[in-house]
Amino acid sequence: MISYSIDQLLVKGKEAIHQDVIVKGWVRSFRSNRFIALNDGSTINNIQVVVDFENFDEETLDQISVAAAIKVTGVVVESQGKGQDIEIQAKSIKIYGGVNSDDLQGTILQPKRHTLEFLREQAHLRFRTNTFAAIMRVRHALMFAIHQYYNDKGFFYVNTPIVTGSDAEGAGEMFCVTNFDFDNLPKTEDGKVDFSQDFFSKKTNLTVSGQLEAEAAAMGLGKVYTFGPTFRAENSNTSRHLAEFWMIEPEVAFNDLDDNMDLAEDFMKYVIQYALDNCKDDLAFLNDRYEKEQSQKPKDQRSDLGLIERLEYVLNNKFVRLTYTEAIDILKDSKPNKKGKFKYSIDGWGADLQSEHERYLVEKHFKSPVILFDYPAEIKAFYMRLNEDGKTVRAMDVLFPGIGEIIGGSQREERLDVLRKKMEEFNVDQEELWWYLDTRKFGTVPHSGFGLGLERLVLFVTGMTNIRDVIPFPRTPKSAEF
Amino acid sequence: MISYSIDQLLVKGKEAIHQDVIVKGWVRSFRSNRFIALNDGSTINNIQVVVDFENFDEETLDQISVAAAIKVTGVVVESQGKGQDIEIQAKSIKIYGGVNSDDLQGTILQPKRHTLEFLREQAHLRFRTNTFAAIMRVRHALMFAIHQYYNDKGFFYVNTPIVTGSDAEGAGEMFCVTNFDFDNLPKTEDGKVDFSQDFFSKKTNLTVSGQLEAEAAAMGLGKVYTFGPTFRAENSNTSRHLAEFWMIEPEVAFNDLDDNMDLAEDFMKYVIQYALDNCKDDLAFLNDRYEKEQSQKPKDQRSDLGLIERLEYVLNNKFVRLTYTEAIDILKDSKPNKKGKFKYSIDGWGADLQSEHERYLVEKHFKSPVILFDYPAEIKAFYMRLNEDGKTVRAMDVLFPGIGEIIGGSQREERLDVLRKKMEEFNVDQEELWWYLDTRKFGTVPHSGFGLGLERLVLFVTGMTNIRDVIPFPRTPKSAEF
Repeated sequence: MISYSIDQLLVKGKEAIHQDVIVKGWVRSFRSNRFIALNDGSTINNIQVVVDFENFDEETLDQISVAAAIKVTGVVVESQGKGQDIEIQAKSIKIYGGVNSDDLQGTILQPKRHTLEFLREQAHLRFRTNTFAAIMRVRHALMFAIHQYYNDKGFFYVNTPIVTGSDAEGAGEMFCVTNFDFDNLPKTEDGKVDFSQDFFSKKTNLTVSGQLEAEAAAMGLGKVYTFGPTFRAENSNTSRHLAEFWMIEPEVAFNDLDDNMDLAEDFMKYVIQYALDNCKDDLAFLNDRYEKEQSQKPKDQRSDLGLIERLEYVLNNKFVRLTYTEAIDILKDSKPNKKGKFKYSIDGWGADLQSEHERYLVEKHFKSPVILFDYPAEIKAFYMRLNEDGKTVRAMDVLFPGIGEIIGGSQREERLDVLRKKMEEFNVDQEELWWYLDTRKFGTVPHSGFGLGLERLVLFVTGMTNIRDVIPFPRTPKSAEF
Repeated sequence: MISYSIDQLLVKGKEAIHQDVIVKGWVRSFRSNRFIALNDGSTINNIQVVVDFENFDEETLDQISVAAAIKVTGVVVESQGKGQDIEIQAKSIKIYGGVNSDDLQGTILQPKRHTLEFLREQAHLRFRTNTFAAIMRVRHALMFAIHQYYNDKGFFYVNTPIVTGSDAEGAGEMFCVTNFDFDNLPKTEDGKVDFSQDFFSKKTNLTVSGQLEAEAAAMGLGKVYTFGPTFRAENSNTSRHLAEFWMIEPEVAFNDLDDNMDLAEDFMKYVIQYALDNCKDDLAFLNDRYEKEQSQKPKDQRSDLGLIERLEYVLNNKFVRLTYTEAIDILKDSKPNKKGKFKYSIDGWGADLQSEHERYLVEKHFKSPVILFDYPAEIKAFYMRLNEDGKTVRAMDVLFPGIGEIIGGSQREERLDVLRKKMEEFNVDQEELWWYLDTRKFGTVPHSGFGLGLERLVLFVTGMTNIRDVIPFPRTPKSAEF
């Protein structure tokens, strides 16, 4: 008697015929008092369990209903139905947990179509639905691929701090972390809140990026990456923003911007290929879902490519690389710009690009992922390396169809004097970042890195459009449920 | 001309002789104006670069000093010295970043012995030291092994939330996360702080454990694990506690406590074996370090085993499994108890075990890792499954030599009525945890899981004794530097 996950058993397929097996899972449907569709989360596919009701007592049969948890002991036989090679002829069934059908009303476990919004309200139960479970398995595969990629390339995973005493990173608004009793805040003599009496003896925040610490690590270990949660206290209630999200940030000593672009492209292709290779059933399901969704859109808003086609397209094409300046020229001369179709029209050099511009370049002009580089210094962060022209920096953004910016990175300013000048210009506190400056004092080297938002990647690979549908328990303004 | 990491080149060894290569790294020493020991972080080993000073200009030679960053172009030759197969005969050297020798004073980069305390003060530079870099590489290998183990076993990595609206988990004191302006706290009519006006419209905290959310995920996906930062706002300034640390929490539907013990043992052995297989040089270095440290201790406090011997010992022995009740009997009759040598003497059944008791069982009595299970219900969490005796729960702790408790876990209470009663007794808010109770309503199943503190594991494998030496930027009371 072998205990199998449903995935294992279906992979074995006809080889398993005549074997006595045990499977455990949740009932997805029970037709004609005879056919159970059983799922255990290991795969999107169910195994059919055939119950000869003559052989089972009524009490057991009564409890076999949608969402119930059962253990089936039986023999694998060739399936008579279509769509499956094998099924299990049940010899005995143990009910782990039944379901009160009244309780089931109003839950997303009821066997009918539910909106994604409704699923979000019951995030604790949506792991039991086909769509969300498929997304979670793909998310897992992508995360594993990320670790495998960097491990294979000789990178070291470094856990940069979540609670940080620094607010100089400048990537966005920060949450405060405190151990104060709010009804009894200690004050300094001049009436200010006295953070020296807080847990860490200073004001502390949740990190917005591990980059600066990762740079310090790369200056000793050579090639490192971070992979952890990051936070933004921004009141953006959109389908693209989360207050808490996961970010991957590789940082490599001795890499210049070209190396950085090579790494980003190679990395993205690796993880997408991994998902295609390892999530076939889930991606086929999500591909169908995507097509249905597209078919309901007005014709001019439909995507040219199916979900899997889009992934393959990214794999098979070299990412177009061009400078910000070249991009501005293209955009200035573009039809939508001339016809006033952009919300933000492109008049000249220097402005930041909006999502509409990025998507025009990727989806209409080049029809390919694009890496833009050498951005105006003024619209990018203080730590990016200044070019010889004195006005652009070695920044890069990777732009993807349907997503826009998916990766942002740069070669870092390794010259101590230039870095100091930039920090002055950008009003970044040099005393607070004494340790960051130190990394430029003791054997400074050219180095580069980038950040990838995990949820943006999962959106792209699964074809979902709302970022709340690709993370288990989304954190957004006014919402920290579960 | 091939660019190699030093690790790659040393692995190639004599095969690389006569090749023209490029290596980049930081100077660890420069002897006789001729021999550079170069390290790039990829390995604990240096490559020797031989400089014929007649062929280089003085300016370049002047800048080759400890901690400087250089690029070497040269040919691989057989080494004349001992301790290495190959070395590089330099043809050209580019200085990336020199070092001002005055600046170097007072830093941990000075080529001499430094205390671990001093290294901690310059945590941003300690990636450049042999000891800390070795620890970081081992930490990386362990983290990768953890992901690989669970992926291979069909588990899905689930990111449970860091910011949580729940404070019912009961694993310890929590930090508060807020977006309030402290000088201007909104108040309700009755003068309390009005958290409904905070970012998430409620009081939110940093998570102490992802277990409850992982249980919800396991009720759909079957086998899951979390791996992320967790937090304790406890004022424990010890060598074993951090305010921010990383935890791994597997959770498996249909697993009972025996399965859970099997999983914990198999998992620990896998990751330790992985480190032994993949971190040979770093562990050899740390083994030497450990031996030196042991030799400086009084004889009766020395460990019987070397570091690597201790790891192999864990691999080669089955973990002893016994109940809390059996452990109490052993401890009551033990020599140290009878002679009053325990700080907390064992008088009878019911008390929680202290570290001294756990270590006595592991290090003196069984001389083996031990899994204790079936603890008194009163000293364990509300969610642990009640045994038939009505007074013990299906809890388990895995105890390791030199560490004490390294894993804590349990079979979870899957019976809704029993769980509710326990929550009442433990004063856990059922309304707040409505969603957790839901998972027992819709097809509840037996399930189990445990938590492993990553830093405890790294301590055990590296032989370090202070937890601040095994995480890049430790967070402790009064300290959130970098």
